[in-house]
Amino acid sequence: MQLDTARFLRDLDELRTIGTYRTGVHRPTFSPQDMESRHWLARRMEEVGLDASIDGIGNVFGRHRGAGPHLLAGSHIETQNHAGWLDGALGVIAALALARAGLPVDVCAYADEEGHWGDFLGSRSLVGDLTEAQIDAARNRTTGATLRDALAEAGLAGRPRLLLEDGRYRGALELHIEQGTQLENAGLRLGVVTGIVGIRQWRIVIEGQQDHTGGTTMRERRDAGLTAVRLLAAVDQEFPKVCAERSVWTTGRILLDPNMPQIIPGRAEITFSFRDLSVEVMDRMEACLHHLVWESNRRERCTARLEFIGRTEPSLSDPGLLAALEGAAESLCPGAWQAMPSGAIHDSQILSRKLPVAMLFTPSIGGISHHWSEDTKREDLELGVRVLAEGASRFLMGN
Amino acid sequence: MQLDTARFLRDLDELRTIGTYRTGVHRPTFSPQDMESRHWLARRMEEVGLDASIDGIGNVFGRHRGAGPHLLAGSHIETQNHAGWLDGALGVIAALALARAGLPVDVCAYADEEGHWGDFLGSRSLVGDLTEAQIDAARNRTTGATLRDALAEAGLAGRPRLLLEDGRYRGALELHIEQGTQLENAGLRLGVVTGIVGIRQWRIVIEGQQDHTGGTTMRERRDAGLTAVRLLAAVDQEFPKVCAERSVWTTGRILLDPNMPQIIPGRAEITFSFRDLSVEVMDRMEACLHHLVWESNRRERCTARLEFIGRTEPSLSDPGLLAALEGAAESLCPGAWQAMPSGAIHDSQILSRKLPVAMLFTPSIGGISHHWSEDTKREDLELGVRVLAEGASRFLMGN
Repeated sequence: MQLDTARFLRDLDELRTIGTYRTGVHRPTFSPQDMESRHWLARRMEEVGLDASIDGIGNVFGRHRGAGPHLLAGSHIETQNHAGWLDGALGVIAALALARAGLPVDVCAYADEEGHWGDFLGSRSLVGDLTEAQIDAARNRTTGATLRDALAEAGLAGRPRLLLEDGRYRGALELHIEQGTQLENAGLRLGVVTGIVGIRQWRIVIEGQQDHTGGTTMRERRDAGLTAVRLLAAVDQEFPKVCAERSVWTTGRILLDPNMPQIIPGRAEITFSFRDLSVEVMDRMEACLHHLVWESNRRERCTARLEFIGRTEPSLSDPGLLAALEGAAESLCPGAWQAMPSGAIHDSQILSRKLPVAMLFTPSIGGISHHWSEDTKREDLELGVRVLAEGASRFLMGN
Repeated sequence: MQLDTARFLRDLDELRTIGTYRTGVHRPTFSPQDMESRHWLARRMEEVGLDASIDGIGNVFGRHRGAGPHLLAGSHIETQNHAGWLDGALGVIAALALARAGLPVDVCAYADEEGHWGDFLGSRSLVGDLTEAQIDAARNRTTGATLRDALAEAGLAGRPRLLLEDGRYRGALELHIEQGTQLENAGLRLGVVTGIVGIRQWRIVIEGQQDHTGGTTMRERRDAGLTAVRLLAAVDQEFPKVCAERSVWTTGRILLDPNMPQIIPGRAEITFSFRDLSVEVMDRMEACLHHLVWESNRRERCTARLEFIGRTEPSLSDPGLLAALEGAAESLCPGAWQAMPSGAIHDSQILSRKLPVAMLFTPSIGGISHHWSEDTKREDLELGVRVLAEGASRFLMGN
């Protein structure tokens, strides 16, 4: 295996010139810049000997011509608006480097991981979880334009959509930036991802009585905002007793109604979610949340109710892939890596419905992502692709 | 004194036909309906023997022709949008009834108490606290139209603005609906207002670090929303220890930034205020608030700071007027009234800058106000005007 990390970095630098925005890039899915980058990628795939195609949802797929067993490797190539040069691109260009090194790898840039038009459209399409009706209904989250129009404008209308070929892959790999500061804070250079956490999300709706602040005494009030504060303070006290070390829980959104300085809020709506790698831990957190809402309703004059929004299941990395990646990491950067869960969702979670998956993280400087100033040290990028290639090689040999 | 309460109720019913909306009225300041009601009122004033005029800010003033000592009595005649028939109108028509009964009372409908164009424009103009420049700058809170244009359209442009005549009044009285449920809940028919509470208002700004919920561990987070919850929970625990029986405190407004379900809030802004009749009690609450913010900054990873928005001072009712009203109440409805503060601001608070003031409250059914369904039992309206007249009479005789 001849891994050309210098070429890998040059490819990343060249891709960065498409849609440049300050030190980052702006390539929203199916924009002219995004389509330019997809065609650029297809040419690079052909150069390294893959059969390249762009399918009807925008997936750029490079198929290895030789014998298996095969791995699938990739990530996404579009970006958030005015975002970083590595988020997604890193994993695609790393996969390309593996193919160039001669590994039996199919390379894919899964379309629209960043959700400009939907929810993991490209990888869902690949695993057979995206219907034509869903494509008909999809609209751009910013402009409201239809996905069908965008696909037509991008020259993709009418093209078939690829499906993963049954039995072709031993697994799927993805290298990605961490988008957090755990590696940086620990002084580490690489993370081997043990799994992607599950998410459970609720709306908590609290109904009180809107009233004038001046004319309503404290004991007459049914202040929905106050009940919300007390409930969230109870969550803050009780969740640490049931959570695990890596659990996170977040109140991202609070809406008071009418949210006016001198009016007692008659209604409060909270969006609350938590994440963990363990279903058992999430079950405990969920039970705690239900108990705290029950307890709130026992004590308070405002009623609180939980409205379930949705959940994604945690997906654990495949033990065989994990062992290969950990062995490669310990061999190439002993003591400078850690096993860690991914708090964010990636295409790998969608692929895990069909394939064994595993991921690697490179450190994000300052934890910055989804911003043009996002960056990673070049030596850490090189280390990432080297461990990815070494892990893939070990895994394939082990099988 | 011959108080005609039947006529008083008929006047209220007649005024209610101007700008009728369902069982309430819609008479925003300087609307055609509002101006019709002002001219209607001026004719009623003339009928009861007052010299009536409408001044350059819309105050409808009826001047008693006889000898003093005089009292000033009134309230406002415009309404909130699609609001109740009694809020304001009650106090104006009650004052008219006193004049009709032969009491030496000047009657005034203070313009725009409801704040369509500003902040107590009519009563501020009367006490000399409204400049021409402020009128130039005033705009409609809904349409943005200029007050100057509205005054011209109402036929009031160029008219002089009245000032309270120095030395003419022994005091000012106002009958108003309670706009709360304290009287109703206590089974009482009348409130003698001991004063109008003061208000102090702050913005609490909390600065944290916006981050992705997935990639940021609990101990890395600087969650401005969480710090806000903890601070407000501390206020909820500590304020009862320093407040007085009638104190109120309110978080009417919370703004998280960016207020998105899956993003850790980087900033929180809270609008917080409290009210009490006692400066000493409010000083204690203010000291407590400062301490809790200091304590928050000692403990938390997000910084909180207090931005002072403004304050109004409490205005205590005049002891002489209060004694006369309490004597009248105990004589006309023994055991069915209480002394109570006003949690809302009224024109009387503005007038208190120049005159001794006092107020009476009639019960609001269900506490409803600023809504077309606002109402008060007719016997309670009658009782209100009878106690107002008896109190005024006792006060004038006592002097």
